[in-house]
Amino acid sequence: MMRTEFETIEYIKSTFGLSKVGDDCAVLPKDADTDQVITADMLVENVDFRLDWATARQIGHKSLAVSLSDVAAMGAAPKWAMLSIAVPERLWNTGFLDDLYVGWHALADKFGVELVGGDISRSPDLLVIDSIVGGETARGKAILRSGAKAGDAIYVSGSLGGAAGGLAILESAGSNRDPDSILVKRQLHPHPQVTLANHLTSLGLVNSMIDLSDGLSSDLGHICRASGVGARIYADQIPVDGELTQIYDPARSLAMALDGGEDFELLFTASGDVTVDERFRVTKIGEITANDKRNIISDDGTQHELTPKGFRHF
Amino acid sequence: MMRTEFETIEYIKSTFGLSKVGDDCAVLPKDADTDQVITADMLVENVDFRLDWATARQIGHKSLAVSLSDVAAMGAAPKWAMLSIAVPERLWNTGFLDDLYVGWHALADKFGVELVGGDISRSPDLLVIDSIVGGETARGKAILRSGAKAGDAIYVSGSLGGAAGGLAILESAGSNRDPDSILVKRQLHPHPQVTLANHLTSLGLVNSMIDLSDGLSSDLGHICRASGVGARIYADQIPVDGELTQIYDPARSLAMALDGGEDFELLFTASGDVTVDERFRVTKIGEITANDKRNIISDDGTQHELTPKGFRHF
Repeated sequence: MMRTEFETIEYIKSTFGLSKVGDDCAVLPKDADTDQVITADMLVENVDFRLDWATARQIGHKSLAVSLSDVAAMGAAPKWAMLSIAVPERLWNTGFLDDLYVGWHALADKFGVELVGGDISRSPDLLVIDSIVGGETARGKAILRSGAKAGDAIYVSGSLGGAAGGLAILESAGSNRDPDSILVKRQLHPHPQVTLANHLTSLGLVNSMIDLSDGLSSDLGHICRASGVGARIYADQIPVDGELTQIYDPARSLAMALDGGEDFELLFTASGDVTVDERFRVTKIGEITANDKRNIISDDGTQHELTPKGFRHF
Repeated sequence: MMRTEFETIEYIKSTFGLSKVGDDCAVLPKDADTDQVITADMLVENVDFRLDWATARQIGHKSLAVSLSDVAAMGAAPKWAMLSIAVPERLWNTGFLDDLYVGWHALADKFGVELVGGDISRSPDLLVIDSIVGGETARGKAILRSGAKAGDAIYVSGSLGGAAGGLAILESAGSNRDPDSILVKRQLHPHPQVTLANHLTSLGLVNSMIDLSDGLSSDLGHICRASGVGARIYADQIPVDGELTQIYDPARSLAMALDGGEDFELLFTASGDVTVDERFRVTKIGEITANDKRNIISDDGTQHELTPKGFRHF
């Protein structure tokens, strides 16, 4: 049987226990009061980033951001990090790695994350980065994908689709794009929702959470499958990125908000209305249901199946 | 200024804090009684392993073994692991990854190490593996490179040079080599000294330790620099691999034992004679001195400077 890339990865993860906890991070006991969460994200040149699209600082920033986003999605506070890098010879002596670390450290410093180790290896051709972040949460309080309950309200933070819009611009214009494009920055310089996640944890209403790395239609599926529940969301409630709707028609914009990956916003369910500080923006987009269906209600009131079409990045 | 690969890696590590603790693992407080040690090792196809030389099982075994060896060198017990892999399309649907995990798990099970997470990514061309292992040691009891004291006896475990001999065989014969070669197995299927390390820790005499990954002449240098001491070792005390001396003359065999990397034996210093269980073999090869010189005494009694000539693997 031939498998697609996605199927292969899912097969490996399920067969060999790489998604044993079925979550953004592994959860390990630390002490009587604390659990430790740990995540690893491997980023490969020309698969997860391109050197003609992103600066070294952006690559450093994003390699940490994706892992911080995983830690945030567990409701945990990031504490330490390691960075393993395989470096091709063409990047030695160029200042590239210095800049990569500048971008990495600027984000790490923002959240008090300490670089404690890692590895550097030679690569025959492509740059490969493995980003490892450890965080902490109160014992037994990590927010899992599996905690959603029928009747929960479904929320997302921020706005959606911007990173997919930025990717579309990069794919058509490449390095000739507008250097100030907000959408391109959403793709190349995402902000992990660490502060919001800690705020949400303090409210105590959140039953399940995931970060939007694969896209809403896929990531809501992860929560529903892990929790054994269904979901109903409303198209007119989705907070589509405002920059996106200035470029694309409403249908295309909505599709990017539903299926575009890498926004690194939070998707969570809560047993009650969630009111956050005015620093943050969260939007209720639907509710968890007792069946195993995932549906979206269109503007005209018709109901459609919500099919996972998450971008597998680029 | 152009830098060599080695200089580049050392520069990056020192500039960006990747060797902040200057040791095989980072040490982080876990609870009142326990410290956590964590290490990451990145292995790149055609740099750290070759698919025409090693089986998938051997690659899985070795990727974990190198990290377990780092944990052992801290006197710590390994507990959990993560594995990030970038997989080229030519290896999907071949059973390669299944075999890699079989090799990985066979070693993990031996030491009760649990796979808790990791990442799988697509690679455009080469296989890249980042192996992450966490372990535990009593609070403040991790054995560092920096603990050697003038007057300490210097010990190594097992025998040395076998892995370098295996590499030489692979470089000349490649996949046509004798499949039962013990030296080739030393190179492709190394045994991390986890059990010995725990035994040594229980004896309480060990002041500094490192695993022999770069080679004795280099790794003894790491201990001496970190500890601000010198060393004197005796050529006729070095436990040269017995298989090696059947193939090479004494001078070449000794050079491989001194400078060959990847034996993954332990090099340690102790404030007194170390007697181990008969399950283990340790050999006293010299003593730590108060100056900053590293010397080797030849069979004829003449003294020479011990120059680091560690293999940078292949």
